[in-house]
Amino acid sequence: MATNKIPTKIYLSEDELPKYWYNLRADMKEKHEPFLNPVTLKPCTAADLEPVFCKDLVEQELNQTDRYIEIPEGIREFYKAYRPSSLTRAYFLEKKLGTPAEIYYKFEGNNTSGSHKLNSAVAQVYYAKKEGLTSLTTETGAGQWGTALAMACAFYGLDLNVYMVKVSSQQKPYRKAVMQTYGANVIPSPSDTTEAGRKILAEHPDTGGSLGCAISEAIEVALHKDKCRYVLGSVLDHVLLHQSIIGLESKIAMDKYGIKPDIIIGCAGGGSNLGGLIAPFMADKINGKSDAKFIAVEPASCPSLTRGKFAYDFGDTGKTTPLMRMYTLGCEFMPSPSHAGGLRYHGMSPVLSKLYHDGYMEARAVEQTSIFKAATEFARCEGILPAPESAHAIRVAMDEAIKCRETGEKKVILFGLTGTGYFDMTSYMSYLDGKMTDYVPTDADLQKGFDALPDIPQNKNI
Amino acid sequence: MATNKIPTKIYLSEDELPKYWYNLRADMKEKHEPFLNPVTLKPCTAADLEPVFCKDLVEQELNQTDRYIEIPEGIREFYKAYRPSSLTRAYFLEKKLGTPAEIYYKFEGNNTSGSHKLNSAVAQVYYAKKEGLTSLTTETGAGQWGTALAMACAFYGLDLNVYMVKVSSQQKPYRKAVMQTYGANVIPSPSDTTEAGRKILAEHPDTGGSLGCAISEAIEVALHKDKCRYVLGSVLDHVLLHQSIIGLESKIAMDKYGIKPDIIIGCAGGGSNLGGLIAPFMADKINGKSDAKFIAVEPASCPSLTRGKFAYDFGDTGKTTPLMRMYTLGCEFMPSPSHAGGLRYHGMSPVLSKLYHDGYMEARAVEQTSIFKAATEFARCEGILPAPESAHAIRVAMDEAIKCRETGEKKVILFGLTGTGYFDMTSYMSYLDGKMTDYVPTDADLQKGFDALPDIPQNKNI
Repeated sequence: MATNKIPTKIYLSEDELPKYWYNLRADMKEKHEPFLNPVTLKPCTAADLEPVFCKDLVEQELNQTDRYIEIPEGIREFYKAYRPSSLTRAYFLEKKLGTPAEIYYKFEGNNTSGSHKLNSAVAQVYYAKKEGLTSLTTETGAGQWGTALAMACAFYGLDLNVYMVKVSSQQKPYRKAVMQTYGANVIPSPSDTTEAGRKILAEHPDTGGSLGCAISEAIEVALHKDKCRYVLGSVLDHVLLHQSIIGLESKIAMDKYGIKPDIIIGCAGGGSNLGGLIAPFMADKINGKSDAKFIAVEPASCPSLTRGKFAYDFGDTGKTTPLMRMYTLGCEFMPSPSHAGGLRYHGMSPVLSKLYHDGYMEARAVEQTSIFKAATEFARCEGILPAPESAHAIRVAMDEAIKCRETGEKKVILFGLTGTGYFDMTSYMSYLDGKMTDYVPTDADLQKGFDALPDIPQNKNI
Repeated sequence: MATNKIPTKIYLSEDELPKYWYNLRADMKEKHEPFLNPVTLKPCTAADLEPVFCKDLVEQELNQTDRYIEIPEGIREFYKAYRPSSLTRAYFLEKKLGTPAEIYYKFEGNNTSGSHKLNSAVAQVYYAKKEGLTSLTTETGAGQWGTALAMACAFYGLDLNVYMVKVSSQQKPYRKAVMQTYGANVIPSPSDTTEAGRKILAEHPDTGGSLGCAISEAIEVALHKDKCRYVLGSVLDHVLLHQSIIGLESKIAMDKYGIKPDIIIGCAGGGSNLGGLIAPFMADKINGKSDAKFIAVEPASCPSLTRGKFAYDFGDTGKTTPLMRMYTLGCEFMPSPSHAGGLRYHGMSPVLSKLYHDGYMEARAVEQTSIFKAATEFARCEGILPAPESAHAIRVAMDEAIKCRETGEKKVILFGLTGTGYFDMTSYMSYLDGKMTDYVPTDADLQKGFDALPDIPQNKNI
């Protein structure tokens, strides 16, 4: 190992850092279908989106042609406080597995938010500030997005209301405390601060809430409050654009040492981490310069890519968003309460859905006891205690490396390690105590979700 | 800022990393007084220490002359997985304070143990493995040391029994879970696994335990179990030696850019972080090459340097260790339950005590509401959520920077940011809710501790 030319961690200097985000849509042979206004069923325009989102973000959302979009100086300054993230050669894991494969991981957990979510939070708050807004609203489930946004709002001086799924705010009081430390106002949802919340409370006074309900509350506030907008941490194209910083840094670092990944792996909930990690590598594949394999890893309990339909659907349970064509389990599908809260989403980024549909990407579903086994093994040799979400990627990276051990192939594997598991210790305890169980929905469970897909002409042939 | 030549984070490449620890004692004009065998009151020999500690560590402990001690390849390999730690220019904090001072911090929280403790844990477990030991014992209070040691034991394949103060194991179940994830056996202390524990349980069945009791249990097991030794995470000279990696990396990074610190600040509990950070800079001061100022920051609730006696005392409440001459509040002193558990120690590293006594270092005591105020301000502009212990150094760094704002001096300030506060959110909640109070012991409180100092000839003139 000592004589190997590739260091354990490949860092970039400040002047090697990307100055542009990369917009993968510009290189896609076919773009994903347009978002539809749910009332008119016509493609969404900027005017449809601007009451909810910042103007610059709407422009980025609808921009399918510009390959590179400059990262404003004010965002790059913030990025420098915690980026570049390290690209690590997993020498210890390779040794433990006895594999001839080379394994690399891009670790996005080295900031207080604990995950990659900060990359887009910084950008979104920067543009909100630029537009003269004074506050933002959002929802959070597991809490990583809310934490990242709270950090960014503290930095740029905007107020933030976070609607946190009530049951999560009770189960994760420390997550809530981190957001409050950064100055955010955290409101357990459903709440009596919105009509949507009051309606649900009247009908179900004891409900623990849901992400769908929290989204509805956050959007309602943004629509009615002056100089306030709503922000979202995944799924949308502009979020993937911001997350391209992950892939760009990875590629610059690997190019420095002439490393070409054969397999690129990421966990996929809404898709922002995976979309960002693969972006520049996927461009090479689309343009015939690489035959790398891309693998999205999702929980078996919420298998949107592996068992979902490629259909137009709402982004939220409350059916308030534009319709997006994506792999979906139906916006009424209620995934079982797994330990990877960040991956419990019924749909999938339209960009990733399109790439998967067109055969550029594979997908695998894995069960949670298997991902906690991988997480624990990884922690014991590489030292980082991963978030359950991130451990999905670790699981498949280990599986692929074990295959190489069997075939003798020296494949180069890159995976995204999206964050740390410090706030997920109850899940680890459940695994260590042998109390964790797996859950895979039956076909009948899934059919209920599909039956509730929007009955619109565009969904006729799914 | 963009035109400033000093990057936000200064990283070192793998070939710039230190290959030797630096032994500050070799440069000290006067060494600290020898440890005494508490029975004979004669200086401790290797034979006195080896039943409890690994041989290599005993050798390092007693080595006051070799300036540089090689870091074995097997330790450097592990260091590469999480080192170098970043040296960050706190541009955002400087701007917020409006100070002409330059502020730098060396951040040791970027590893799963969450603190600098890993630097010595790795070394101690490596030597234990080399000696053919199969297991280790230790105690932990706040949990950072236990976590670091659990990681290192997982890596090198040794069994570990951690005696965790019972009240801490109840208050911090997630800390316990992290150690268990790394495979450690965590035993709430007092326990029925040792004579010392059974004795205390018989007398005080409802006790929440104490660090002193946990140390006694851990040492008892090490003395009676085959191929087992006890390890300690602070205070001792060999621990400071390992922690010199912090200061060495800082100095190499600063030298690259021609930066000379005027003030170097660290929090001080047992002293390992501060001793490591200052080591190479202090050498320059001792040798007349620098007139930098060094400031140890301790909690006002446990003020060993600022209000303690420079006397021979036991390292533990159970009075089982050798006697060390150090600043101490008396080993029977019970600090109030502050939120910086890692600084609640009655004594101070003999090396640091000697430097302080000889006028090479200053000390300040700060109150906890003031340190949480600094921690929150720091988090909101620099993004890192610090451990309460680390926030002691932040507090004084900010105070010094504010003085510069008033005088217009462009001083260069370096402080050690020892770790993250992810497992301290209840403390932050207490601060945010306005429920945190300060506690400063009265002179009468302290006198009780001094009255219980060992009545030996060496303590006659204190």
